[in-house]
Amino acid sequence: MRLQSDIKVEIRNKIIGGPDFLICVPLVSGESSDLFKEVAAIRQMDPDLLEWRIDGYDHVQDIDTSLDTLAELRTGLDDIPIIVTCRIHSEGGLKKLTSHERQRLLTAAMATGNLDIADIELCNDVHFVQTIMETARKFDVRIILSHHDFKSTPEETFIVDTLFKARDMGADIAKIAVMPQSYQDVLTLLKATLKTREHGLKIPAISISMGPQGALSRIAGGLFGSDVTFASGITPSAPGQVPIKHLRNAMSVLYT
Amino acid sequence: MRLQSDIKVEIRNKIIGGPDFLICVPLVSGESSDLFKEVAAIRQMDPDLLEWRIDGYDHVQDIDTSLDTLAELRTGLDDIPIIVTCRIHSEGGLKKLTSHERQRLLTAAMATGNLDIADIELCNDVHFVQTIMETARKFDVRIILSHHDFKSTPEETFIVDTLFKARDMGADIAKIAVMPQSYQDVLTLLKATLKTREHGLKIPAISISMGPQGALSRIAGGLFGSDVTFASGITPSAPGQVPIKHLRNAMSVLYT
Repeated sequence: MRLQSDIKVEIRNKIIGGPDFLICVPLVSGESSDLFKEVAAIRQMDPDLLEWRIDGYDHVQDIDTSLDTLAELRTGLDDIPIIVTCRIHSEGGLKKLTSHERQRLLTAAMATGNLDIADIELCNDVHFVQTIMETARKFDVRIILSHHDFKSTPEETFIVDTLFKARDMGADIAKIAVMPQSYQDVLTLLKATLKTREHGLKIPAISISMGPQGALSRIAGGLFGSDVTFASGITPSAPGQVPIKHLRNAMSVLYT
Repeated sequence: MRLQSDIKVEIRNKIIGGPDFLICVPLVSGESSDLFKEVAAIRQMDPDLLEWRIDGYDHVQDIDTSLDTLAELRTGLDDIPIIVTCRIHSEGGLKKLTSHERQRLLTAAMATGNLDIADIELCNDVHFVQTIMETARKFDVRIILSHHDFKSTPEETFIVDTLFKARDMGADIAKIAVMPQSYQDVLTLLKATLKTREHGLKIPAISISMGPQGALSRIAGGLFGSDVTFASGITPSAPGQVPIKHLRNAMSVLYT
């Protein structure tokens, strides 16, 4: 039995923090036509959640086009929850957008009702985070507050503290993704996740050890207190993502 | 890349401690006819190694019949290495056999040349271990010295010390299998295995966290310094063994 979170986030018949370690697949296409092909292919793979990495979209700076595309995505996805992420460039974002551009896009997107969750980084300034949070509450969107380290794995206490910091800032879901330099680092991430639960984090969490060495966390994280794993559909959005089919096969051994 | 052992044990074109995390499937049938059916089915599954749990064999106390069966097994297996294990009752053995009975059987079996590896427990008295060791050297059989705890997971230092103790007593391969009471215990086993390598254990090792919670170690142990995993063929020989097909699918995600 995997470790569930005390507080669940229920969206469109999916329960984040519930009995299942949910699989989210990212959409990373640049062109609209490719994006819809990507969605069609990924839908066959039956993911639990989809994340539109809008920072990878060629027309991300054209808000109207972006919102039209989001509306079309929403229509085509039946009841699959959509996460919209406009990743900041310093934490792996595919384009350099100003804080103002990201804020305008996200607030406009949330107002359409066509997304379920938005993922923003903890490193953003307080004003940005507060504006996004307020808009999210108004339009019933859930917020992931995230931290990424593409170079190394911080100490266990830093990982625990970061997940609690996300909660303290009002996140519905706390997320951390870090890069291992060794298999010990993968154990550190898993142990920190377990500690976070032991120390009383009640909201859903997502913890990831990236890269090939970290693949273990993408399969096993759900045992230790992580609630969502990211698998690749057509193209990975982060190093170490495993194709959803293989991930699901591997998970079937652990979650019984 | 998984962590290999510095010293390899090469048997019939398999390398224990080499680039591959090898899969061993146990044979646990009581009756000879069932045993050969079990072997035929398992051969289709292409295991790297087979372990005959002779303590589960109905005729284990009849040495001649046991040796005839071993010879027949050997003939039918082409080049798959055979481990013969007559597990002591106090560590999960299926029958209560005296030390003398186990010693007679194993020494006679080793003299036939029809087995490649024998697994004996560290808890045996020194005389037993020495006799088995001497016979093994004489007939070019490799020895696994093992420790099992079906109730709990000892401290990290105990796990490390046990693997070194097996080496110090002359084992070719050191093995420990313990039962987790929590997912933290699974991390303890994996971390201890890694530590054993960091502290300089050069011979191949096998470390297992048993039961459903420990399944992770059966998939991922090879990343942390374990060299062999046990998968079930027809019937598991220990709690938590995963069917070989599922185990192999899961491993394909981690060992690339």
